[in-house]
Amino acid sequence: MSSPQSQSDQSLLTAIRGSFLDFVDDPFYVAEEDSARYVPDGLLVLEAGKIKAFGDYAELQGKYRDVPTTAYAERLIMPGFIDTHIHYPQTEMIAAYGEQLLEWLDQYVFPTEGKFQDKAYAEKVAEVFLDQLLSNGTTTALVFAAVFPQSVEAFFEAAERRNLCMIAGKVMMDRNAPDYLCDTAESSYQETKDLIQRWHKKGRLRYAVTPRFAITSTDEQLQKAGELLKEFPDVYMHTHISENVNEVAWVKELFPTCKGYLDVYDQAGLVKERCVFAHGVHLTDGEFQRLSEAGSAIAFCPTSNLFLGSGLFKIEQAKSADYPVKVGLGTDVGGGTSFSILQTANEAYKVAQLRQQKLSPFKALFLATLGGARALCLEETLGNFEIGKDADFIVLDPRSTPLMAFRNAPATPATLSALADRIFSLMMMGDDRAVQSTYILGKLIYER
Amino acid sequence: MSSPQSQSDQSLLTAIRGSFLDFVDDPFYVAEEDSARYVPDGLLVLEAGKIKAFGDYAELQGKYRDVPTTAYAERLIMPGFIDTHIHYPQTEMIAAYGEQLLEWLDQYVFPTEGKFQDKAYAEKVAEVFLDQLLSNGTTTALVFAAVFPQSVEAFFEAAERRNLCMIAGKVMMDRNAPDYLCDTAESSYQETKDLIQRWHKKGRLRYAVTPRFAITSTDEQLQKAGELLKEFPDVYMHTHISENVNEVAWVKELFPTCKGYLDVYDQAGLVKERCVFAHGVHLTDGEFQRLSEAGSAIAFCPTSNLFLGSGLFKIEQAKSADYPVKVGLGTDVGGGTSFSILQTANEAYKVAQLRQQKLSPFKALFLATLGGARALCLEETLGNFEIGKDADFIVLDPRSTPLMAFRNAPATPATLSALADRIFSLMMMGDDRAVQSTYILGKLIYER
Repeated sequence: MSSPQSQSDQSLLTAIRGSFLDFVDDPFYVAEEDSARYVPDGLLVLEAGKIKAFGDYAELQGKYRDVPTTAYAERLIMPGFIDTHIHYPQTEMIAAYGEQLLEWLDQYVFPTEGKFQDKAYAEKVAEVFLDQLLSNGTTTALVFAAVFPQSVEAFFEAAERRNLCMIAGKVMMDRNAPDYLCDTAESSYQETKDLIQRWHKKGRLRYAVTPRFAITSTDEQLQKAGELLKEFPDVYMHTHISENVNEVAWVKELFPTCKGYLDVYDQAGLVKERCVFAHGVHLTDGEFQRLSEAGSAIAFCPTSNLFLGSGLFKIEQAKSADYPVKVGLGTDVGGGTSFSILQTANEAYKVAQLRQQKLSPFKALFLATLGGARALCLEETLGNFEIGKDADFIVLDPRSTPLMAFRNAPATPATLSALADRIFSLMMMGDDRAVQSTYILGKLIYER
Repeated sequence: MSSPQSQSDQSLLTAIRGSFLDFVDDPFYVAEEDSARYVPDGLLVLEAGKIKAFGDYAELQGKYRDVPTTAYAERLIMPGFIDTHIHYPQTEMIAAYGEQLLEWLDQYVFPTEGKFQDKAYAEKVAEVFLDQLLSNGTTTALVFAAVFPQSVEAFFEAAERRNLCMIAGKVMMDRNAPDYLCDTAESSYQETKDLIQRWHKKGRLRYAVTPRFAITSTDEQLQKAGELLKEFPDVYMHTHISENVNEVAWVKELFPTCKGYLDVYDQAGLVKERCVFAHGVHLTDGEFQRLSEAGSAIAFCPTSNLFLGSGLFKIEQAKSADYPVKVGLGTDVGGGTSFSILQTANEAYKVAQLRQQKLSPFKALFLATLGGARALCLEETLGNFEIGKDADFIVLDPRSTPLMAFRNAPATPATLSALADRIFSLMMMGDDRAVQSTYILGKLIYER
């Protein structure tokens, strides 16, 4: 177009030139070459924080030649990573020694989360946590706060200042935890409702009703959580499921009339779209099927599942063609051992290998971007470079350490197969150093 | 002493002041507090590349007050890490996608190792490889070269220039590999013999007779390897064993009269002291017992075992009190995904967790230092700060990333229990960045 209108609009545009990779479909169900979109020399045009145009530089340059353009040579630009399960109050207790899930909660997690009654403390940790996310290329996350409403306030305030799309919620927990961390069914309902009214859909923020897990919630509290989902049909639900065999056994004791772990949540109306279950290591075939029917999602957290000795997630079963479940990657810090989604993909690959499965780099990076956006029902605005979506993206450096520079030639990969090798090395060897820049709504917010 | 003699000697001394951790015994068999030696404010006095004195600064300062001293505040000084299994020609193909052991060898390893016929190429990679080891705090390694004698020459020349204690050998491989990589039983015998005569015990270098594994060596070649061990009783033997279930099955087909995989090597005289077997993931109880009796060692390579989907090494069985086997950690680059022994310890912990075992940070760092030295029969000269040993040591920074700095207070841990938490975070979160300095024979050879 060359109307005066579009001419004047161009003064508000900026652009990024470089190599781009995103996904337009799910490589678990279509051929990888049909799912991945690789533009070796591309142009991403931005307007008011959104994607205005995207494609080959050669095709777009004529139209946008006067737009101020930042060029990244020998880099790979991708949509921001999406972390579908993480606990911000556990930032400081990452890598706590020696226990599996239930003992680890008692010994390390609960005492740490107790500190988040102090809002000033929560504010400080929220800043460190968001710095960590952004320096690792994670632009959106589904986040556990602590049981205290002020811990949610602190988190949302910090995320709002940075214009981040974040989903979070106050932990609901009314039993099997220290008194200083317990709410009640009624108080958790009321506090959650207040927080939803204050924060849900405020700018880019979203609320998740967050019962910790079936062990620490009475049936009454789970029912209250279900009521909240009915009252506010577009909020999220975020909890844990079937992470550890002892946990699964305890849930069966606590809910003897339920058919299984997922059924505990199902009976409370917590298995539907926008419901995200972390782990699912020990889910049964019937439970995968039910999650598929319900449109619920699983957060696959490999570094955590290995660190806590929880077990090996069955990615190929979750992503089966017969009853596909939405899956994203989760770091699960502090059960996970790294904020890096690249390192998380490294261990996802290893979990798959131990199960004689191959998790290709395209599949892994799909889970980290568009797959995560779909798991969080955010694919309308996030996950790839479709025109109109929010411009949250990252610039990756495949030669960010001496060893990676030795392994990976400077040349831009010309083919999808050469790119596959490059991005596999990024996910196996890359860490926060591989993230050169992070952009939020088209603005550079982090640079290494 | 205050004789004129000792006064004049002091002009040749240097010293390091800081917090020191080493091991004086094996924490798998004695209490951890009896195995670990922690000196929060210590002095290490060096003379001619060896340790002259070591202890509390308060006790030693009077005697060595005029010795030029480098002080490291808020750091942890440890003996250099020992990598008991690694392939230098595979440096460039680290993180190769998608295969398990046997297919991975065919598709990636063999073509890469073919390049090492060119000595100039081998020299270039040897330099990169040694840079990687030193920047990761690894000061000694047991190293596979390629089948070509010149690949060993290139490696030893590079190691000699840096005064490193390295053990390496030419691969022996006379079947089930591409022609361009195969030697013969006779040529491998002769070439190995020549290399032993040229390099074994030249300065700090040692030779390892290196049949790749039973699949790629005829019985004739294994017998020749056994002959070499008889002719040169103080050389090493370095090979692979029981890494992958398909490999184990193939060995049984190839050697139908042997009782098992280890027995193949045993019948050739390759199971004794100074014999190091990489992996051993699928060893039987009887095989562990035989390794114990023979004084042989296992290199535990967790990042590789996970990356290639080989399985979970049974560390508690190898380190049982009934028939203890010497064990060290191996990165196994390029089957392993990192040169970092810290990252290797991270995944060793995860492998143990998946098996419901706890690998404490003291146990892991024992394996990385004194345990590795014992596995390589180098404990007379390496592995801890005993007086008279070679002064190969490293300076670790427990606050080397923003996240580690947030998790770990600057204060020096006052107790062994506080130290345990600190070093656990180092092994779970640390990488090459945690290695601030590497000293070889008392000289600073690498600084971050």
